[in-house]
Amino acid sequence: VSDRRTDLLDAAIEEIAIAGTRGMRVEAVARRARVSPALIYHHFGDRATLLASALERVGVRADAYTERAKPVRGSAHTRLVALLVAEVQDDPEVRINSAAWGELRDAAIFDPALRPVIADLTDRWVRDLAALVVEGRADGSISAPGSPNDLGVRLSAAVEGISSRWLAGMLTTVQARRHITAIVHDLAR
Amino acid sequence: VSDRRTDLLDAAIEEIAIAGTRGMRVEAVARRARVSPALIYHHFGDRATLLASALERVGVRADAYTERAKPVRGSAHTRLVALLVAEVQDDPEVRINSAAWGELRDAAIFDPALRPVIADLTDRWVRDLAALVVEGRADGSISAPGSPNDLGVRLSAAVEGISSRWLAGMLTTVQARRHITAIVHDLAR
Repeated sequence: VSDRRTDLLDAAIEEIAIAGTRGMRVEAVARRARVSPALIYHHFGDRATLLASALERVGVRADAYTERAKPVRGSAHTRLVALLVAEVQDDPEVRINSAAWGELRDAAIFDPALRPVIADLTDRWVRDLAALVVEGRADGSISAPGSPNDLGVRLSAAVEGISSRWLAGMLTTVQARRHITAIVHDLAR
Repeated sequence: VSDRRTDLLDAAIEEIAIAGTRGMRVEAVARRARVSPALIYHHFGDRATLLASALERVGVRADAYTERAKPVRGSAHTRLVALLVAEVQDDPEVRINSAAWGELRDAAIFDPALRPVIADLTDRWVRDLAALVVEGRADGSISAPGSPNDLGVRLSAAVEGISSRWLAGMLTTVQARRHITAIVHDLAR
């Protein structure tokens, strides 16, 4: 569903990906969305709320394009690989979204208002992966020992690391997906 | 060795960590180093050269504090764990350096001048790790199959992912180091 509010957030995400979180100017987002800055302030109140809302929207978009790539059938291990490989796709929307995620995550180091939002989104991602690990132990497709939550942390962090290199042009899409597949095999075998 | 040039670069690194790459103003670096902006331009010519030089210096600093933590003796696997765990240390210099690395890496996505520098530093890191994997196969401490270079990519990317979460306050130093140790065990066992 596209409405006015999500259009504004999508413009903010693009601007954050390109200009950085601290380089994001509300005026530039407004230009990108072809609206007035006043309309953005009307919807989001202030810059900090716009940033936090854009970060939430990055999470919603990532959920959509990774879940879409995950097969309904197959072992939990197969679905785990598909879900994580889908973080890297030759699609401008995926690139922009990942770049904005990285920018917002790094800005959170010195921005206490962004910290709870990024922590909450990361936690949800980790819990989704942990649930697949639990399923994989039940269906026999995953035998790696250890806490499912810890495995979720390692898998998601490793994928973020590969994704950063892919965004910076150090790995091709094919290479990045191959590395992610190998990492899932080694960490959650 | 501390000289005027490295003092200026250390000030730039702090400013990049806190303000972001695109938020880094030469005037703010000058204030931090208690010099005039003209002196910075005298040493580095322009902003792009200052950024690339700061990134080189981030690499030198990281080499120093990771190599310092690596034991001279012990199996290659032990040295590999020590080297990677040393990326996460309760030390303001390490935090600032890692944060600046993340900011510069992410800015490289849209800054073609930074790309070759970050690619070169990452390559050197990957080659160092690959060399330890080769040593580990010779001394019997590592039996993981596959290309040493690929293993170097996965290890370094996974550590970068864990390090980002640690910087953003989502993992404590102890947790981050425990995750890195587990990742090395699983990927380069």
